[in-house]
Amino acid sequence: MCAPGCIEHVHHAVSRRGLFKGAAAAGATIGAAVAMPGAAEARRFPRFQRVVDLTHTLTPEFPTFFGVPGVGLRKIKDFKTDGFNVNEWTVLEHAGTHIDAPIHFSATGAGPAEIAIDQLVVPLAVIDVSAKASRDADYQLDPADIAVWEKRHGRLPRGACVALYSGWETHLGSGRFAGKDDKGVFHFPGFHPEATAMLLERRNIAGLAVDTLSLDHGPSKEFKTHTTWLPAGRWGVENMAGLGNVPPAGATLVVGAPKVKGASGGPARVYALV
Amino acid sequence: MCAPGCIEHVHHAVSRRGLFKGAAAAGATIGAAVAMPGAAEARRFPRFQRVVDLTHTLTPEFPTFFGVPGVGLRKIKDFKTDGFNVNEWTVLEHAGTHIDAPIHFSATGAGPAEIAIDQLVVPLAVIDVSAKASRDADYQLDPADIAVWEKRHGRLPRGACVALYSGWETHLGSGRFAGKDDKGVFHFPGFHPEATAMLLERRNIAGLAVDTLSLDHGPSKEFKTHTTWLPAGRWGVENMAGLGNVPPAGATLVVGAPKVKGASGGPARVYALV
Repeated sequence: MCAPGCIEHVHHAVSRRGLFKGAAAAGATIGAAVAMPGAAEARRFPRFQRVVDLTHTLTPEFPTFFGVPGVGLRKIKDFKTDGFNVNEWTVLEHAGTHIDAPIHFSATGAGPAEIAIDQLVVPLAVIDVSAKASRDADYQLDPADIAVWEKRHGRLPRGACVALYSGWETHLGSGRFAGKDDKGVFHFPGFHPEATAMLLERRNIAGLAVDTLSLDHGPSKEFKTHTTWLPAGRWGVENMAGLGNVPPAGATLVVGAPKVKGASGGPARVYALV
Repeated sequence: MCAPGCIEHVHHAVSRRGLFKGAAAAGATIGAAVAMPGAAEARRFPRFQRVVDLTHTLTPEFPTFFGVPGVGLRKIKDFKTDGFNVNEWTVLEHAGTHIDAPIHFSATGAGPAEIAIDQLVVPLAVIDVSAKASRDADYQLDPADIAVWEKRHGRLPRGACVALYSGWETHLGSGRFAGKDDKGVFHFPGFHPEATAMLLERRNIAGLAVDTLSLDHGPSKEFKTHTTWLPAGRWGVENMAGLGNVPPAGATLVVGAPKVKGASGGPARVYALV
């Protein structure tokens, strides 16, 4: 469990991120001007016939960005002796399939409990970059990939979630999911900052999702997608499961974001209505 | 925070439940014969126009059955000094708006990660007993209340969730929500065991939901709804919010149950598609 020792690991693992405080603040300024579809706006949800689970089961073994267990359970009551079971959990907020709320990278943004509900049940666009990612572990989804999707499926719906499908979950259980090399550098796909800027400024997208450990690709040192996207009042979901089981367009994403006051994100239950 | 002291409180608060281990085991035997609608069965989901949040924000102050904080956050990284925020949570599984999985009251039942997804996105039937509950804090929803609902809206859909709406959330912030008297007895509405048996054996319902602390009403000593319903492979949701904002029939409930391995339940994000 993530007790005394692990927290120090986290401090060490993430210390390099501290360098980019300035960039995050800058992002907040840029993004504040971008209006999101509001609750009052008329919405059209497509009919659906089935539900697809896009959530990995969270276990202590599930890889985390920080390299420490993301969850630990302690049994408080046991059916054998007490007639019922109850556990106490210790949870690292950004573990498993989880939401990054705006306040993860901003001073005053929304936590998962404050994100407007209309931004958590949204059209889902899945951009398949799995072929490119299989050739280049550091692949970044770029504006050209968005253009290919739009040519086939039409303009990205305003307020949608854009999900990067790299097929990376096939590497779970091996070191390749995080892909850390002998210099401690991660290798997995993510969003190119130019794609992020386009989705923010020219498509008014609500959320980004990846099937990898981070919205930014593994080798990122500046976390530029995080530092522009989240302070702009947008959310992200990392470690999505099963994106290969949903159509590239037409589904509705339901993000069951944990409603915990003061959180910066947290493990989420994520479904697609197809 | 739920640190050293609180666990002892929990042990004390729930010790009386230990008496009913036998009843739970009996329930497992009874319920095992009841088949649920399977994944292969054709489903018809109604079209929806809006999403209603049925989830309370989980805070350390939110009342729990055990009388201890249900959640605590510890800041690990702070935007001011590190450029981003991360917390570690301690969570009592059965706190806030949360799911009771079958294994909460059984030896080998499903946890929230194992419940079939087709049983977590289901028709929602809301039975309004708020007038009766306002006159009797210990009111139990009984088969007659179900009959009234069915007379108006037709037979309860197979595989639905039946939600008891008592209006109890108006008592949040006062001692009346838990309603503990000077003898330590709780007072709030719940499901009558006869209604529970009817919904299990004659209606094949997937889940029960309440806007109070427990599926069983406050003074219950035998927890008979828990001990028959959960071991039968069914789930419950406690502390629902906003049930007065959804129609009595026709909505679809989405239970964003946390997908944590080994859990007996956990805080959930719950939406109605209306």
